[in-house]
Amino acid sequence: MKVDDKNLRPIWLDTDLKAVKVIDQRRLPHEFVIADLKNVDDIIMAIKEMYVRGAPLIGVTAAYGVYLAALNSPVKTIEDDYLKEECSRLKSARPTAVNLAWAVDKVLFEVLKVEKPKKKIDTARTQAEKIAEAEAENCRKIGEHGLVLVDEISRRKKGKTVNLLTHCNAGWLACIEYGTATAPIYAAYEKGIDVHVWVDETRPLNQGSRLTAWELGRHGIKHTIITDNAGGHLMQHGMVDIVIVGTDRATCTGDVANKIGTYLKALAARDNNIPFYVALPSSTFDWNLKDGIKEIPIEERDPDEIRYVQGLDQGITRSVLVPPASSPAANFAFDVTPARLVTGFITERGICKATEHDIKRLFPEKKSP
Amino acid sequence: MKVDDKNLRPIWLDTDLKAVKVIDQRRLPHEFVIADLKNVDDIIMAIKEMYVRGAPLIGVTAAYGVYLAALNSPVKTIEDDYLKEECSRLKSARPTAVNLAWAVDKVLFEVLKVEKPKKKIDTARTQAEKIAEAEAENCRKIGEHGLVLVDEISRRKKGKTVNLLTHCNAGWLACIEYGTATAPIYAAYEKGIDVHVWVDETRPLNQGSRLTAWELGRHGIKHTIITDNAGGHLMQHGMVDIVIVGTDRATCTGDVANKIGTYLKALAARDNNIPFYVALPSSTFDWNLKDGIKEIPIEERDPDEIRYVQGLDQGITRSVLVPPASSPAANFAFDVTPARLVTGFITERGICKATEHDIKRLFPEKKSP
Repeated sequence: MKVDDKNLRPIWLDTDLKAVKVIDQRRLPHEFVIADLKNVDDIIMAIKEMYVRGAPLIGVTAAYGVYLAALNSPVKTIEDDYLKEECSRLKSARPTAVNLAWAVDKVLFEVLKVEKPKKKIDTARTQAEKIAEAEAENCRKIGEHGLVLVDEISRRKKGKTVNLLTHCNAGWLACIEYGTATAPIYAAYEKGIDVHVWVDETRPLNQGSRLTAWELGRHGIKHTIITDNAGGHLMQHGMVDIVIVGTDRATCTGDVANKIGTYLKALAARDNNIPFYVALPSSTFDWNLKDGIKEIPIEERDPDEIRYVQGLDQGITRSVLVPPASSPAANFAFDVTPARLVTGFITERGICKATEHDIKRLFPEKKSP
Repeated sequence: MKVDDKNLRPIWLDTDLKAVKVIDQRRLPHEFVIADLKNVDDIIMAIKEMYVRGAPLIGVTAAYGVYLAALNSPVKTIEDDYLKEECSRLKSARPTAVNLAWAVDKVLFEVLKVEKPKKKIDTARTQAEKIAEAEAENCRKIGEHGLVLVDEISRRKKGKTVNLLTHCNAGWLACIEYGTATAPIYAAYEKGIDVHVWVDETRPLNQGSRLTAWELGRHGIKHTIITDNAGGHLMQHGMVDIVIVGTDRATCTGDVANKIGTYLKALAARDNNIPFYVALPSSTFDWNLKDGIKEIPIEERDPDEIRYVQGLDQGITRSVLVPPASSPAANFAFDVTPARLVTGFITERGICKATEHDIKRLFPEKKSP
């Protein structure tokens, strides 16, 4: 996507093919830093520490991790057991996003098919690139399908501003291009529809106020940052036309794990008859799970992510301690919104209801156990 | 209440009776600063800028404002018109908490009854003190009544930890003693019931992580800070037994204005069959209003309260800018939880359902238009 008229993606392979380059998203919006990831340890650290985040991007980064594993094999023959071991390490970097395991397994599957070391390395690289391109294309299609919803609202409102609300960052920074939740917004903007986005700041790591606001602002899209507490009030007063969020893992029955707080927005949308959509590529469906609340593992992260807030003071990025030093905090990173609160899914193949029947009608080739 | 074994209130009259002393709550928890308020302008500034906050404390502070108005009258006779004008200025300091107008009118009513200037000044002072003592006593009684609810849960759980969740600060810092939402917690703690409090950080001004955590910590009560986003997840997983919040204004029909985000917690409590109680002195009921969402004015505050976060860095309190400098924010300070989501009110006279019938049965002397 465009940043100051330069085309940019959140991840790419260095020209010498030896390092993966990523935007260090922890430093945005006040610093723009590119990090070089040179081996599996770097990749795991970048996923854990959230240089990169967002389900599709985590998947692509991990896919490149398999490539770096092959490239840096300590044994020239690149043993299968070594690759499997490295893949298992990659898959355990974060627990919630299903794209991580999905992407790693996809690359590994292709690599294990070939024999020669050079071929293994090349296969890993082309597979990772293929996943990146497929995610970008999926997001483009999600935008196309989601545009229909935004366009309908715009017509109903006779061209008045369409107010969307989103939580966290499911933008191009979380994907490769367009984003998932933001793809319909970018598509509507390109089409000249008057859109305005309420951006939940998204505590604790403020991916909304730091990343989504940055993305939308750089693209010239009208937006207003609000606290995570505010969405219900806005909905009560007719200030939200539609909610669109992303997801880190959705069950084939339609339950949706996403950034903590998503469930509260879904409840408010339901209470105020506002459509609540989840935008996702099919790689984010977990075809093995049926009950999201019981089955999706919810990551608990460092409480200091809540206790300290990072921002700019006199040109310097600092972290400040908000609560009393002695007060503990608990940091659950995701919650699960049950399917009954989801109006529909926006996927690369079109829009469907959040039911197993409708999801599988759109993806008939997928099998659940 | 006790802070490091010293008895403390958030407001008191200086020994020379010329200034009102308040804890500057903007500076907590990292700095403990007492501010001297010497005239009506100081009082208005302290309310607007939130040196003091919380419905009962705003009321008491404004009541002392009437005293300072009388004390500092430019004309020795202390004209009624002057007093009325100053009271009207006091009442417009903040729009949402009904206690503000209630307390000011109560003091003014008594002052206008007397003739001599010295008597006017004395009446204003004793009335303000009376309101302060009444609020302290109300909170003590709220604690007594609310204790029954906590005790019941503790018995049902066979003595296992009772997990309460609260939003914002409705503690003694917001009142005079005990607090409203926290009064049952302090009472349960005194009785030896095992309680643990989930403290919503309460963006944007972090009254939860800064003030409630400080209060509870200094009193030795177990607590854990969570993001405002987390409550729904905790409730889904059985980690919350009861929600108790305060309110800035409740209609006689049971709608509740409270810190923005309260409505989202009420929705989650309902969705998970968790009792959701609102603790308030009767001074917080607005007997004139019937539809909270339509009628209660919701204050919109400076967006920079969202954009900047205050905390401690290397011993210095700093404000850091979180989002891009160019991104706008909107700062709605309260929302309204409809009566249908409120399990009950905990008042100084006991517990009642959130219906006009039940509220008025408890306060039969109150008249609505």
